[in-house]
Amino acid sequence: MASGDEHRGEGDYGDAATMGALRQMHAGYAWADVASLEPAAAAGPAVRVRGAAVRAVGRRVAFLVLRQGSATVQCVVAGGSRGMARFMAGLSRESVVDVAGVVSLPREPVRGTTQQLVEIQVEKLHCISRAVPNLPISVDDAARSEDDVARAKAAGEQLVHVGQDKRLDYRVIDLRTAANQAIFRVQCQVENIFRQVLLSEGFVGIHTPKLIGGSSEGGAAVFKLDYNGQPACLAQSPQLHKQMAVCGGFKRMFENYSTFRAEGSDTHRHLCEFVGLDVEMALRDHYSEVCDVVDRLFVAMFDHLSKSCARELEAIQRQYPFKPLKYLETTLRLDYDEGIRMLQEAGVHVEPMGDLNTEAEKKLGELVRDKYDTEFYMLCRYPSAVRPFYTMPCPDDPRYSCSFDVFVRGEEIISGAQRVHDPELLAAQAEARGIDVRTIAAYVDSFRYGAPPHGGFGVGQERVMMLFCGLGNIRKTSLFPRDPRRLAP
Amino acid sequence: MASGDEHRGEGDYGDAATMGALRQMHAGYAWADVASLEPAAAAGPAVRVRGAAVRAVGRRVAFLVLRQGSATVQCVVAGGSRGMARFMAGLSRESVVDVAGVVSLPREPVRGTTQQLVEIQVEKLHCISRAVPNLPISVDDAARSEDDVARAKAAGEQLVHVGQDKRLDYRVIDLRTAANQAIFRVQCQVENIFRQVLLSEGFVGIHTPKLIGGSSEGGAAVFKLDYNGQPACLAQSPQLHKQMAVCGGFKRMFENYSTFRAEGSDTHRHLCEFVGLDVEMALRDHYSEVCDVVDRLFVAMFDHLSKSCARELEAIQRQYPFKPLKYLETTLRLDYDEGIRMLQEAGVHVEPMGDLNTEAEKKLGELVRDKYDTEFYMLCRYPSAVRPFYTMPCPDDPRYSCSFDVFVRGEEIISGAQRVHDPELLAAQAEARGIDVRTIAAYVDSFRYGAPPHGGFGVGQERVMMLFCGLGNIRKTSLFPRDPRRLAP
Repeated sequence: MASGDEHRGEGDYGDAATMGALRQMHAGYAWADVASLEPAAAAGPAVRVRGAAVRAVGRRVAFLVLRQGSATVQCVVAGGSRGMARFMAGLSRESVVDVAGVVSLPREPVRGTTQQLVEIQVEKLHCISRAVPNLPISVDDAARSEDDVARAKAAGEQLVHVGQDKRLDYRVIDLRTAANQAIFRVQCQVENIFRQVLLSEGFVGIHTPKLIGGSSEGGAAVFKLDYNGQPACLAQSPQLHKQMAVCGGFKRMFENYSTFRAEGSDTHRHLCEFVGLDVEMALRDHYSEVCDVVDRLFVAMFDHLSKSCARELEAIQRQYPFKPLKYLETTLRLDYDEGIRMLQEAGVHVEPMGDLNTEAEKKLGELVRDKYDTEFYMLCRYPSAVRPFYTMPCPDDPRYSCSFDVFVRGEEIISGAQRVHDPELLAAQAEARGIDVRTIAAYVDSFRYGAPPHGGFGVGQERVMMLFCGLGNIRKTSLFPRDPRRLAP
Repeated sequence: MASGDEHRGEGDYGDAATMGALRQMHAGYAWADVASLEPAAAAGPAVRVRGAAVRAVGRRVAFLVLRQGSATVQCVVAGGSRGMARFMAGLSRESVVDVAGVVSLPREPVRGTTQQLVEIQVEKLHCISRAVPNLPISVDDAARSEDDVARAKAAGEQLVHVGQDKRLDYRVIDLRTAANQAIFRVQCQVENIFRQVLLSEGFVGIHTPKLIGGSSEGGAAVFKLDYNGQPACLAQSPQLHKQMAVCGGFKRMFENYSTFRAEGSDTHRHLCEFVGLDVEMALRDHYSEVCDVVDRLFVAMFDHLSKSCARELEAIQRQYPFKPLKYLETTLRLDYDEGIRMLQEAGVHVEPMGDLNTEAEKKLGELVRDKYDTEFYMLCRYPSAVRPFYTMPCPDDPRYSCSFDVFVRGEEIISGAQRVHDPELLAAQAEARGIDVRTIAAYVDSFRYGAPPHGGFGVGQERVMMLFCGLGNIRKTSLFPRDPRRLAP
């Protein structure tokens, strides 16, 4: 109940309807964070803590574990009223509770909480949001690693394993696990470092439209809609508009954006909506300038994540074990031809001028890791036939293109290239792929007003996160994932 | 032509097809930026510069002005070949040109270029991208201020004025003006400061889905689409999912995101697609904690923009004159009732429990500016009836709500509030507004698993930019704007 005057808990415990009521009842106690509580030699400070009730035990001496983010602390009703102990025991799991009390030293280190050397002697206890008694999934079950479930099973014990679909159905509860709290904090840093490195190199952050006429870059995987009577679709990438922005005089730019793909197939690495990180830049001499940016950017990112997110990466590892990514200080660049040779020498059948399938990419990742000791590398100079129509052919041999892909743990995460800035060649290459040039006229025309040579790349943020932490399923890296079947919650 | 071997300009001038050809022909010259060329006492350095041809004049002594971003420099063919001078004179405006030559001191300061104390003695001159001879609009015309056109007209002169629609039709050329280059650099900082201030206060950047089932928050202004056979729409804001993320244990979060509104009306302040900046956070005692964040965030942003973007703001002011925004170190907060009183005392008819229309908001902005000397202020405690269903009523008087709007130069830019975290009250308030609760069941249910009191706000990035610089039309602040009529380019 939100209207103010109905709090049953006017005493030391009870339900409280409003923040205002709680403020009055807990006056004199100072707000504290569970994670920053510290042991004090003398009588500790009088603190107020809000958190989720994890579990309550006991009758005469009642204990309540309170969780705030990833931190937990034990709260004790020692000499307190029986009424309070009963009230505590009756709190449903995940209810949001305010505890006011004194920070104290437990007789022995507390087991099973992140705060082991302090506890709180409860003086006031009020519930501000009751969870339903029967939760559809429990945070403890959702936080369990597959190894733990397997080990228990081997020992004849039965532990609940929460499947991926059920997790996502009740994502609001699933997100409360330590691993999930960490995954989205690390991912925030992926985006942040991407932006900061590029800003420091003179790139400008821009926003291109997601609602576009025509059919984006062609292909079937496009969401269509009605735009005030005009046929429109959701851009599959900022490709066309970011190139137009280069023609508009922005020499170096980046974009973080929502990307929409009406993917038909349910895989571990595709989402129907994801966060794209895109770069486009004017070139001086060679498309390797784009590779240089990728190199500096991602090496800086991996370095930074390992250092500044160590605690979060540990939390992820506890539930989803993975080995740290192997990468070099200067990123390895291989020519596509060399990759083909390595695969052929390893007995893998590949077409020299065809595309690599997922399996061949995986195998090449292994060969490269064994030979060069890196799981992060670039493959350059792809055959023109397997790249999009706007890709610049190599000047010395137009069967090849000024393009590259980047791989992490054997999976592609980045595609990049020099683009065609000549409008006639661009139109010819589009036509050769069966694209109706009239639908991209504004794009082609933008190269008729003077266009600098340029190139860029795009990468999916969730894929970076999935592969850096070896998470195995991209749904783990999306707050509320969208796949061919899932549109909720 | 992109294939390498067809450069007619193998000598000192001509057309060059590829970057590789240019690299060879201009070997020995070092890349330089126009903006950072500096006068040298002795013979200057041999430099290479790529830019757009602004204008070429002369026959025997030929001059070419080259533009790079917002910087321009004069290039001179002094003792050079007549052929080169002829080639130079034949370059169409906006063609992309590489000049290799020596930095030197002009006999007298150059007029009409940003580099007035240096010029380049051209030794090699090659064109890498020819613009069509008849451009649909010229950058000079697009860069002209309305004042200049009016002044010329008063003096009997006729200067071309490029209208808003024509600018947007040829946005790729329009974006090359100094004002537009500046607008999008400042706007990048708006987003950047938003992110950095919040990150420094422990907020986590998240991404909520834009593709959602149901009908977003209700109302007609929703783009609908088919999601693999399921009815779906584009989220009008991250409102529902950012609240669900708070329930998922993220105590403080923000999002930069694409927002879609199928607006029917063509106004100066509405776009069908814009960049939202959103915040949601758990509250301790009172929704004023959200106001505190707004206060710190925007004062820091305005301070920073004025200091670090001074050059860009000047460039905008040259084309679109505006007065610096008046704001206080601590943002003024008025109660809605007080605002009503001020308007009534000024003789404006307003309903005490109704919403303010745009005109009344404008008038109140003037009254507040006159009385408090600020054009940036918050109006708090709006009547519940004029706020969305998820707004928390005031505990002391449910006719009012824990909500606020923020105004810049008399226009609303931010809406914020405490949200209802009690699922029963939330469902009741939704029903009272005629919303089918079944369509938002996942949202309402997420408050059944323990939900902390929380609140937040949302702001449109383009609107911040428009109002900070008094630009008068939001289309000026969107790279490729989308309004009810415009879906291209």
